[in-house]
Amino acid sequence: MATAGKVIKCKAAVAWEPNKPLVIEEIEVAPPKANEVRIKIVATALCHSDLHYLVEFTPKENFPIVLGHEAAGIVESVGPGVTEFQIGDKVIPLFLSQCRECRFCKSPKSNHCENSAPPVPIKAEPDSRFTCKGKNLLQFVGTGTFSEYTVMNQIAVAKIDPAAPLDKVCLLSCGICTGYGAAVNTAKVEPGSTCAVFGLGAVGLAAVMGCYAAGAKRIIAVDINPEKFEKAKVFGATDFINPKDHDKPIHEVLIEMTNGGVDYSLECAGNVGVMRSALESCVKGWGVSVIVGVTSMQDIAARPIQLIAGRTWKGSLFGGFKSKDGVPQMVKAYMDKKVKLDEFITHNMTLDQVNDAIELMKQSKCIRTVMRVSPQ
Amino acid sequence: MATAGKVIKCKAAVAWEPNKPLVIEEIEVAPPKANEVRIKIVATALCHSDLHYLVEFTPKENFPIVLGHEAAGIVESVGPGVTEFQIGDKVIPLFLSQCRECRFCKSPKSNHCENSAPPVPIKAEPDSRFTCKGKNLLQFVGTGTFSEYTVMNQIAVAKIDPAAPLDKVCLLSCGICTGYGAAVNTAKVEPGSTCAVFGLGAVGLAAVMGCYAAGAKRIIAVDINPEKFEKAKVFGATDFINPKDHDKPIHEVLIEMTNGGVDYSLECAGNVGVMRSALESCVKGWGVSVIVGVTSMQDIAARPIQLIAGRTWKGSLFGGFKSKDGVPQMVKAYMDKKVKLDEFITHNMTLDQVNDAIELMKQSKCIRTVMRVSPQ
Ligand SMILES: NC(=O)c1ccc[n+]([C@@H]2O[C@H](COP(=O)([O-])OP(=O)(O)OC[C@H]3O[C@@H](n4cnc5c(N)ncnc54)[C@H](O)[C@@H]3O)[C@@H](O)[C@H]2O)c1
Ligand SMILES: NC(=O)c1ccc[n+]([C@@H]2O[C@H](COP(=O)([O-])OP(=O)(O)OC[C@H]3O[C@@H](n4cnc5c(N)ncnc54)[C@H](O)[C@@H]3O)[C@@H](O)[C@H]2O)c1
Repeated sequence: MATAGKVIKCKAAVAWEPNKPLVIEEIEVAPPKANEVRIKIVATALCHSDLHYLVEFTPKENFPIVLGHEAAGIVESVGPGVTEFQIGDKVIPLFLSQCRECRFCKSPKSNHCENSAPPVPIKAEPDSRFTCKGKNLLQFVGTGTFSEYTVMNQIAVAKIDPAAPLDKVCLLSCGICTGYGAAVNTAKVEPGSTCAVFGLGAVGLAAVMGCYAAGAKRIIAVDINPEKFEKAKVFGATDFINPKDHDKPIHEVLIEMTNGGVDYSLECAGNVGVMRSALESCVKGWGVSVIVGVTSMQDIAARPIQLIAGRTWKGSLFGGFKSKDGVPQMVKAYMDKKVKLDEFITHNMTLDQVNDAIELMKQSKCIRTVMRVSPQ
Repeated sequence: MATAGKVIKCKAAVAWEPNKPLVIEEIEVAPPKANEVRIKIVATALCHSDLHYLVEFTPKENFPIVLGHEAAGIVESVGPGVTEFQIGDKVIPLFLSQCRECRFCKSPKSNHCENSAPPVPIKAEPDSRFTCKGKNLLQFVGTGTFSEYTVMNQIAVAKIDPAAPLDKVCLLSCGICTGYGAAVNTAKVEPGSTCAVFGLGAVGLAAVMGCYAAGAKRIIAVDINPEKFEKAKVFGATDFINPKDHDKPIHEVLIEMTNGGVDYSLECAGNVGVMRSALESCVKGWGVSVIVGVTSMQDIAARPIQLIAGRTWKGSLFGGFKSKDGVPQMVKAYMDKKVKLDEFITHNMTLDQVNDAIELMKQSKCIRTVMRVSPQ
């Protein structure tokens, strides 16, 4: 390729400062170093975690940054030592790596990886892969997919079926694996069980889909935006609750509906109050509540008796999938029509329209907006 | 027996009001009704839960009460419909019942029982089993063993080996099963793992014993009272930490000692701050923290990322043992010298000395005080 080994100048959406619109800029993307892969991003979606970083988590020193992490693309070139990838491979960038060598990767109990990029970059490295107007740019969770090109370590890239449509499977880069896996891998939902999913964005809907796939007989979908209920039905939800329709705390409503509480609850809203409600909605004895939503600024809280009474409180990162193993399997499941993806996509745009996509998510008016970045 | 079917007048230690010394009184104990068993208490120990009720949990309407729940005795008489027990059987009263019929008893996932006496009696029933000076007395957690006789439903009584020494196996009525089982059944400690136990009363020491029995290679014993460390060694602890010896938060000390945190932590102190520390001392990816200590007045709290990073927060009631099944097995394990009990007993007294026993526990000067109540 003509670009291999050279700096690429391309278009990216740069977040110069917290809580401001992103700016489409020409940036420079460095060639891949040892063990790195440079990827042409074909499609990227917007996930609430991008929004969380931009709007809620706002220390100025963590800017400027290129956000975006839910994406798919094609290998443009590879750095020294990379044998697993070749130019032209279809790939999905991973915010959670799988080095296969650390103690977490080696354990069947965990999908964490000691060598993952930190979720919050401490500071822009002097040898940043992205620069713009003479400034180094950070890459959100080591990815930074609101850019025509990005560079990532090969431990954080998954090779996928060349037949996969990138503008669909990009969703498997984060939200859908996260929600689906939280139900299937982390909660380990059992056939015949009763589940509740709080928050029906893409993550929550994917959790509903996971509960359904695991054989739950009753799936209670909870959202303060009742427009989400129709979609939830598509993914298998059986009951629909808007907390605003009730005078009493939502966990009391669920406990009454289910004769003592649900077997599994999944929090996909990113709100500590909802996390508490989700725990309290579980039946004593064996109820499992999984935190999926992300919020970094507040504590979760509960009475100790909630746990002593037999409930388990867990969290799920990337749905418990070991990323390089799990993503290609989920791509296959989509190609085999075993998991849905198309139904999550409510809007298609281009990267230029990223601020519109952000606005839609802020207003809870979309499930997923997929932005076309480069031609396939 | 001469007493069968009649009211028994006997000695009991009555807690007339919160936070006051108990008073040795003559009380009346009603004959057992349908499905009930009247038990002559031979030995009873003092557990921190009695103290918690008396001192911390103090609404006046929950008094007068007969405390005590860690005991062993002999069946004096049985009510109509009782076929499982006969006069003279050696038994252990259970604060957690096992009815074998409710959905919790039928599930292998839980040791809860829908038919258990509530931990906090709402009010003295008009047909109270205990009266004194014309007043109904409550029975703590349905037991009330600071009395020469008590009456309990047969679903909350375990028949044990007639050869068992009651002044030792009384400890299996609560504290030792609780701590041991929290490690073995709830945390499910694995061979070769690293554990931390916070709080080295009888419950914590039994947790140490459980970790050791499960094959943990390193057991870090944490207490603010360093006098407890010698005992902890007896039960298998390998490392000893007094938080007061360190300037930094105790979870940081443990994380440094263990290259990232322990695999399992058990909170046996009954303090929400310690519960948080115990969670934060766990390694990300797979760390499991179990709350065993009881405190009802405050929230536990943590950052959501603690759980999203792969930690699990659980609680344990009676060590996860299904009570009627588990207690006779633990009695057998003691008789077979597979679990220790004698080493927990630091003081032997009589029921008249119950206030001395309370004082010792308040000052953290005992592990377990066993009080002789009636001759065997
Ligand atoms: N753990 C992980 O690995 C991981 C990965 C990706 C995303 N996330 C997190 O998952 C969460 C969901 O992401 P998303 O992209 O689906 O977001 P989203 O904004 O599309 O959806 C959130 C939904 O929650 C609903 N909601 C808000 N407050 C609520 C309340 N009080 N009760 C019930 N519902 C409520 C909103 O109406 C909305 O439908 C975010 O917090 C995101 O950061 C976590
Ligand atoms: N979950 C259950 O089923 C169950 C059953 C029985 C008892 N309990 C609870 O278990 C707890 C322990 O009971 P016990 O009888 O062993 O009590 P105990 O009073 O004998 O022991 C408590 C120990 O914790 C230590 N401690 C206090 N503060 C500490 C701190 N900040 N850090 C470290 N150690 C600290 C004390 O020095 C003492 O050694 C109590 O809260 C009791 O109510 C729970």
